[in-house]
Formats: sequence, C-alpha cells, structure tokens
Amino acid sequence: MSPHYLFMNGQPCLDPELASPNHFATSALSSPGNTSTSKFGFSVILTTNQNLPGHRTQGLTMARVDIAPDGLVPPHAHPRASEVTTCLKGDLLVGFVDTSKTLYTQRLRSGESFVFPKGLIHFLYNVDQRSPAMAISALSSENPGTQVVPVATFTSKPPIPDRVLEKAFLIDGQQVARIRNHLQG
Amino acid sequence: MSPHYLFMNGQPCLDPELASPNHFATSALSSPGNTSTSKFGFSVILTTNQNLPGHRTQGLTMARVDIAPDGLVPPHAHPRASEVTTCLKGDLLVGFVDTSKTLYTQRLRSGESFVFPKGLIHFLYNVDQRSPAMAISALSSENPGTQVVPVATFTSKPPIPDRVLEKAFLIDGQQVARIRNHLQG
Amino acid sequence: MSPHYLFMNGQPCLDPELASPNHFATSALSSPGNTSTSKFGFSVILTTNQNLPGHRTQGLTMARVDIAPDGLVPPHAHPRASEVTTCLKGDLLVGFVDTSKTLYTQRLRSGESFVFPKGLIHFLYNVDQRSPAMAISALSSENPGTQVVPVATFTSKPPIPDRVLEKAFLIDGQQVARIRNHLQG
Amino acid sequence: MSPHYLFMNGQPCLDPELASPNHFATSALSSPGNTSTSKFGFSVILTTNQNLPGHRTQGLTMARVDIAPDGLVPPHAHPRASEVTTCLKGDLLVGFVDTSKTLYTQRLRSGESFVFPKGLIHFLYNVDQRSPAMAISALSSENPGTQVVPVATFTSKPPIPDRVLEKAFLIDGQQVARIRNHLQG
Amino acid sequence: MSPHYLFMNGQPCLDPELASPNHFATSALSSPGNTSTSKFGFSVILTTNQNLPGHRTQGLTMARVDIAPDGLVPPHAHPRASEVTTCLKGDLLVGFVDTSKTLYTQRLRSGESFVFPKGLIHFLYNVDQRSPAMAISALSSENPGTQVVPVATFTSKPPIPDRVLEKAFLIDGQQVARIRNHLQG
Amino acid sequence: MSPHYLFMNGQPCLDPELASPNHFATSALSSPGNTSTSKFGFSVILTTNQNLPGHRTQGLTMARVDIAPDGLVPPHAHPRASEVTTCLKGDLLVGFVDTSKTLYTQRLRSGESFVFPKGLIHFLYNVDQRSPAMAISALSSENPGTQVVPVATFTSKPPIPDRVLEKAFLIDGQQVARIRNHLQG
Repeated sequence: MSPHYLFMNGQPCLDPELASPNHFATSALSSPGNTSTSKFGFSVILTTNQNLPGHRTQGLTMARVDIAPDGLVPPHAHPRASEVTTCLKGDLLVGFVDTSKTLYTQRLRSGESFVFPKGLIHFLYNVDQRSPAMAISALSSENPGTQVVPVATFTSKPPIPDRVLEKAFLIDGQQVARIRNHLQG
Repeated sequence: MSPHYLFMNGQPCLDPELASPNHFATSALSSPGNTSTSKFGFSVILTTNQNLPGHRTQGLTMARVDIAPDGLVPPHAHPRASEVTTCLKGDLLVGFVDTSKTLYTQRLRSGESFVFPKGLIHFLYNVDQRSPAMAISALSSENPGTQVVPVATFTSKPPIPDRVLEKAFLIDGQQVARIRNHLQG
Repeated sequence: MSPHYLFMNGQPCLDPELASPNHFATSALSSPGNTSTSKFGFSVILTTNQNLPGHRTQGLTMARVDIAPDGLVPPHAHPRASEVTTCLKGDLLVGFVDTSKTLYTQRLRSGESFVFPKGLIHFLYNVDQRSPAMAISALSSENPGTQVVPVATFTSKPPIPDRVLEKAFLIDGQQVARIRNHLQG
Repeated sequence: MSPHYLFMNGQPCLDPELASPNHFATSALSSPGNTSTSKFGFSVILTTNQNLPGHRTQGLTMARVDIAPDGLVPPHAHPRASEVTTCLKGDLLVGFVDTSKTLYTQRLRSGESFVFPKGLIHFLYNVDQRSPAMAISALSSENPGTQVVPVATFTSKPPIPDRVLEKAFLIDGQQVARIRNHLQG
Repeated sequence: MSPHYLFMNGQPCLDPELASPNHFATSALSSPGNTSTSKFGFSVILTTNQNLPGHRTQGLTMARVDIAPDGLVPPHAHPRASEVTTCLKGDLLVGFVDTSKTLYTQRLRSGESFVFPKGLIHFLYNVDQRSPAMAISALSSENPGTQVVPVATFTSKPPIPDRVLEKAFLIDGQQVARIRNHLQG
Repeated sequence: MSPHYLFMNGQPCLDPELASPNHFATSALSSPGNTSTSKFGFSVILTTNQNLPGHRTQGLTMARVDIAPDGLVPPHAHPRASEVTTCLKGDLLVGFVDTSKTLYTQRLRSGESFVFPKGLIHFLYNVDQRSPAMAISALSSENPGTQVVPVATFTSKPPIPDRVLEKAFLIDGQQVARIRNHLQG
C-alpha cells in the first residue's frame, strides 16, 4: 500500500518558499464553458488545487456555471460541500430536496442568490428557451466532489446491476437499458 | 424569525444535572423492522437524539438494517455521514459510486464489513431470494440524514417539475409520470 | 449572565417545520452598493443569516464588492474566513501579505479570480480612474467578520491609546490625531 | 527529523487510481476473537486503516467485542473517539464515569445499545458465568486509540515510578509491586 | 426532554451587545490554590466559561497548577483537550502513557515545558520534598474535562461494582475496599 | 508542482517508533527574550513544531512574551488562533478591537489573564516605565501565525503600493515614506 502514503486528496498548503502570486490567481472562470458537448446543455468550470494552487486548505471552490437555453444542470449533490449560487445572467429555476422529501424551489434572475445545503440533491434549469444563463457558485470545500444523480446511477463503470435499478426505480429491464443507452449514447 | 432561535438540528449535550443512565441506553435496534411496508422490502431503524438522548454531540449513529428476500435498500446518500456496515445475516450485494462514476461493489456474508464514503450514493441488495438479511451500520454523525435517490427525485413535495426530470433522465413525460406513480402508489 | 445563554453568534439551522423556499433565496446582491458614502470609495454587501436565513451552518458567505474609480477596499482581514474573489467588471489590483511579510499581488480583469488565505490582511484597489469595478467574493464562513486595518486601529471606540499607536507606527501624537481625524471626519 | 515528515497517523485518502472494491471490504470481524489469551477474558478486533484501507479519513471504526463468561473489558478510554456499542449476544453490565465522578451503568441484552461519550472511562462486564457475550461497537474515529486504565498505569514501559502510583492509589510499594506483577505476569 | 434543549455544555459566544472588557479578564489564577485540602497535595485552578466568559468558543483553557512538596497530580486524562504545561517554579517529574503503553517522562525545572497529547493519561509529581512547585498549563478546549484515574475508578457515585475492579486490577475485594476507603476517607 | 506535495504547514504526528520523551519537552521558554533588538521593545518566543515536535497536531502553542519598560507588542492578529495571556510580571495594558470597532481593554497585573478572541487585532503595552513585564500566552493552534499590523502594511516585501496606503490611512506619499522608513530603518 506504500504508494498510497503520498497521495493526498486534500492537498497540504503550498510551501511558502516556492509560492508565487500567480499560484493565487486564475483565469479559469473567465471564458464561458462549452455547453454543447453536454447532453444536458450545461458546463461547470471549477477552481481546483491544480488551476489555483493557492486555494489548497482554504475550504472554498469558486465555480462558473453556463447553461444553454432550455439547458439543465441535472439533479446532483456535492458530498463534501454546501453551495451558494448567484445568478449573473438569465432566468433560472433552481431547487433542492431536503431529507424529508420537501422541495425548496425558486426562480432566480440576475443578481439573485440561492443556497443549496450540504450534500443535498439540487438542480438549476434555464427556463429561457432562447438565451443562455450564467451563474457563479461558491462551494464550502476545495474538493467538493459532484455526483450527477442520473449519470452516477445509470452510467457508472461497472454498471449498477439492472436488478438493483429495476427495483429502485420500479421500472423493467428494458427501461433500464433505454435510459442507460440514452445517457451514455 | 425568533422561533428559529431555539430550534437545534444538532442538539446540545444533555444537562448532567438531569441525565440518567437510561438516556445512554436504547433497545430501539433489538427487534427486526417491518420490511413489508416498504415498496423496496427494507427497514432501517436508527438511534436518534430522541430514542438515545446520550448520543447528542457524539458524532455517531448506529442503525439496524433489515432486508427482505430479494429486497433492496435503493441507491441513497447520507449528506452528513460516512458509513461502515457489518452484515450479520444473509448474502448482500453492496456498492457505492464515487465522484468519477466508478462503482465499487462487493458481496457480503455474515461478519463481513464494507465502507460507504461520506456523501456518496450507495445501495444494499439482498441477493438471497428466500431468506432475509440483516446488517448493523455505524454512521459518522448523530444526524446523518438520508436521501433515497429515486424517492427524492421523483416523489418530492412539491414535485420536481416534469421538464427537469425528463431532461435529467432523458425520458418523456409519460415515463416520468409512470415512475412517479409507481414510486408513490 | 443568563441572557447570554440564548445569544448565538453562529445561529443554528432553520427549523424545517418553519422553513420556506424564500429563506434560501436573496436579492441582496442584485443592486450595486453605494460607494459614495465611504471615504475609500467602496461598498461590500454580504449575504447574512438575516437576509439569507438558509445559509446558517452552511459555512459560506457570498459578497458583492463595488469599487468606485480609483477606489479602495483598504487592507483588512476576516478573522474567521478565507476568501476567493472573482472580478466581474473593471481592473483591480489585489494583494495579501502573508505571515512572513511577503506581499502576493496581482492585477485582475473581468473573469479572473484570486485567493485571500484565511485571516490574512488583503486589499482590492480599482486601478481604473474612470470606471467602477465589481467583484463577487465567496467567504468560508457564514459569519466571517471583517477588520479594516486603519479603521480598527485608529477609530475604535474607545480609541486605542495614543501612546500605543505612536509606538506602533513610530509616529508622534499629532500624526495620530491627524490620521484619526481624517478617518473619522 | 526528516523521516517524521512522511509518517501519518491519520492517513490520507486512498488514491482513486489505485483503489479497488476490496479496499472497502473486510472480513476482519467475521470470526470470534480469542478471549483466552487475555487475563481479563476479552478480545476486541477493530477495523483499521490496514485491514480496511477504505475507511481512511472517514471518521469511523467498527469493532467486534467478544467476552468470555465472567470476562471483563476493563475500565478504559478512547482518547480520540466516542462509542456506541450494540450487544448482539449475552448479558452485559456496562458503564462509564463522567467528569463529575457519576457512574452511568446499565444491563444490556441482545439488541440493546449504549453510548460511551468521548474520552470517558468505561467498561463492559459479561455477567453471565457460563456463556460468552458479543457486541459490535462503532467508534467516531478511524484511529480511536485505547488506554486500558490498570494496564496503562501499572504496566507501562518504562514503568510509572512506584512513588507516583503509591501516592495516586494510596497504597504501599508492596501493593504496587503485587498489582504490577499480577497484571504483567 | 424540553429542559435539555437549553442546556449548553459548550456555551455560545457572548452577545456583543452585553459584553464588557471584564468578561475577557480574570484574576482567577493570581493566587496559589490550597494544596492542603487534597489527599494528593495539589490544586488546579482553571479559567472557565463562568470566571472568564470571554473564552467561550475560543478553544482554550488556562490553568494554574500548585503542588505541595512531594505532592502529586495523580494520573488523569482530559477527554476533550491536549495540554502544554510550563513549569514556573520547582522541580517536576511529569509523564504520559501513550496508547501502546510507552511512558514518556521528563524532569521539568522552571521555564521548561512539556506536551500531554490529547486524551492520554498523564501525571505531574513534585520531586522536591521541601518546596512547592507551580506550573501554568494551556488546554485546547474551553471545556476540557478531567478524569483522575484512581478517583474515577474507585470513588464514582454509584461505585463501579467490586467485581469489575477486582478483575480489572487483579486484586481481591478487601483490597478494593481498602483503596476505596483510603481514597474516599 | 510536485515538490509542494510533500510540504506540510500543519505537520503530521510524530512516528511513535521514532518518538522519544525529549520530543515532548522544551526549554525554549526558560530564558527571557532579547527585547532590545526590536524597535518596539518586545520579544515573543513560541513553542513550535521544530523546538517541540510533540505538539504537532495538538492544537496548542505556548508563548513567552517579554516587554521592556514602556515597550509594546504592537497591534497584531493571529490568523489561525485565539489566545489567552497570563501576566506573570509587571503592569500591562492590553486590548483587542472586535469586528464592530469596539475596543475591549484592561490593565493586567501579575497573575491576571485576558482573552484575545480568534483572529482579532490586539496589543500589549508595558505601562511601567522602569521595569520589564513578562507574560505566558496560550494559542489555540500549533501554527498560529502572526501579522503585526504596522509591519505587515508598511514593510511587506514587495511593498504595498504607496497609492493603496495613502488612500487606506488618508495620508500623503511623504507620510507613507516616513512611516515606512522608520519601521524599516
């Protein structure tokens, strides 16, 4: 197991002897992401310990979210972070489900903000059929992680056994295969 | 907002002046849960700040998981806890998906244990078609919370808009309605 | 001391029985702050437990920073938070000083981000003499606190004794009085 | 001091590139421990970062406790963990002492659970003179540590000076020697 | 259980509206404690949330330790704190036992400091037969708690059953009674 | 970036295989610091992970503060620690400013203690014109860090641009230069 000794998911601080100002700056969020390569019509660009080494150990990630007209950031959760999103452009329908199955949902226009509490399933939908939307999100970890619900459940590698998905969604094997194919295709 | 001042999701310690030994003991896990009232064939009983007041602030929950033959604890996540489960009876197929969509899956027999890392989607399926299974799980919070993926996404109140679910699972409105009805019915 | 019992600087969660979607939404950041009432030419608007009750316990604050042409957010520190700022408009000179007195400084244009590590003195200066600048900042606490260095040292109530400021900045009593008067006036 | 740089008591995450499902599974707890090699008649088997690499950083340990008839897990404390124990077989007398010297004690039969708050001295005694007992415990750290009170105080290496133990327990040197010999012998 | 709702072991911040400078100051440590009322010849005075309300939530306790000639702070542990002690007067033999039963021990004279890692059993003995000793200790919690090993094990209320102590220390019931009587008497 | 991988600002535990008692002891605080090499007339000596390897991960630093007659520990903040200081000799005027610009100030004589809450600007001034003062401070991190306000703002390397300091303190460039020169000279 010795190689594991040196892997650090949560990386330590920069060595101040080697740090320079550009370790604390990034232009990663300055250009719109490409929403056309996603089946769902969205792009998320995150600051990371790679593109912004200075945010190691600081407990924060900044993210730029671009959503095509009628595009969706599908229901997803961050296992290690809460999130505050501020809509900077467009007309978003956002929401999260709490652990009692209550949906908290709101319409956000430019300048409006919304909280997604830690670890809960949430989504952002661009209601506008003609204009893209853009938001800036803050996440409370420099390594928040993301699980997109339909993607993690239907297209994991190896796949979750059909029997499990059939029983979970109360659908038959053909429906499992169809959803899986659409999501993977 | 004043009533909110006194609500505590994470409750404080017991007042030692009022504490007695039975605040630290519970028989909540001593009898099998009823797996027949669940569509999925499982029951989970948790220690809570109510049935076990002494575990307030201690960062732990113990849970008893009963699963009927061919029953499933559907894909779900705990937004505030990691979990170690020890199978005490039966033949379980368990797994979790990480944030890179890799499924880690294993077959557990009596005495075998498995880790579900914090906040990640996981499931437990009783492979045995004739005998129930039972496991004890430890969770790393006295208030772990649970979101069952199909339940939270398809049966929240109010519902997540059809348009969002259609686009998320790449299914049509009829399929959304059918899954929702089955899960709610 | 009993009244102190119920004061909570870090407020607990919302009671889910009383929570509604608008507790998780705010338009506090949607309009530019008024930079003309500040001697320094800046305005910072924060999400708080009051204007955004849903971010209680979530470990995040979102802030809108407006800076007039040639305006300055003076050297300041957040005793309980690190910060990532993303410039959305204008031309900012930003920097922080580490605990070895090294200044890390950078020029930020629209879309560029910078990290201010936890608790360290930092500033944002709008280099542009004619156009205002705007940035969105994320802070790693829902109660970050702020101490503006010249304001906290020269204009506290009651004042820090002149003798202390004279010796600290190696200036005489007249200079202390002059700086204090300018900052307070 | 350089070799210390790489030692990690609390080991970092597994490198996902190298992780496999069996890093998250263990059968360490599947067989009863040998209670006959202990003077006290007990055995505790823990999940560890070695036998269950996947529980690194997850804040949990699972333990199997076997106790011979009339056997005892002597008063001990976990410096870095609270504990919930669930009795799975037998008839246990358990208890902990709080920092005001109050003993909280309870009789546990199969299925019953008890909390040992963080860092406090506690014990488990198998009241049954003929049958072994078994319990599963959850601990709130992947590195809880254990100090068995009589063992740590009387049989450390090097020994705590007699003078200290005489004064602490208000016994004479012969009694110290006798207890030490019995515990070591 | 409602009265428990308002008890706070770890008290919240002072309300800044009600705070005054003397909430942050204490003379609790300014006079020597009375070492003659203790069987062991020591006195410990702690800053607390009562005598120093301003240290609520600050994660620190300061303590003054006075030890009579040949006096002992018996083996004890702080379940919620590590400690650094600085000897200010006298000649101390101090030590702690780690979780592998290794004793780390050292002689401390005026100005010398020693670390007692979190939750581990440790002691301070005044080697000098004629002069008192004094030390200042810092603890890493505003509510560290203390369990003095012989006191907690032999004089709890109600007592730990004799049978448990006999088996734990491998002594007979008469010896248990004698130690208990001496410690209580 | 690979060399950064192994740098650890917060160092891990000592390897118990290599630890010895003297790793947990230090005489670093036993002699008065030299207050004459400081412009301000003070000296602070800290326990560190280097002079006291055993306090790694323990969340504590102990410090000895010596202040010459009429000397000052200038306004400063610890970005990662709260502090409790106990005056052991002399007559100190201490104070901190909170985030609402309120100064909390107190006179401390031998044996009296004061709290400086986490991350806030504070100072210690030796009021006595003839005798040195001495205090012991506890800080709630083994790596607290320090920023002396006038030093960090006026003498960083590279310097904070004059324009920023002029606008921050509402002084002109000559005054900036004069303060900088005095502080550096």
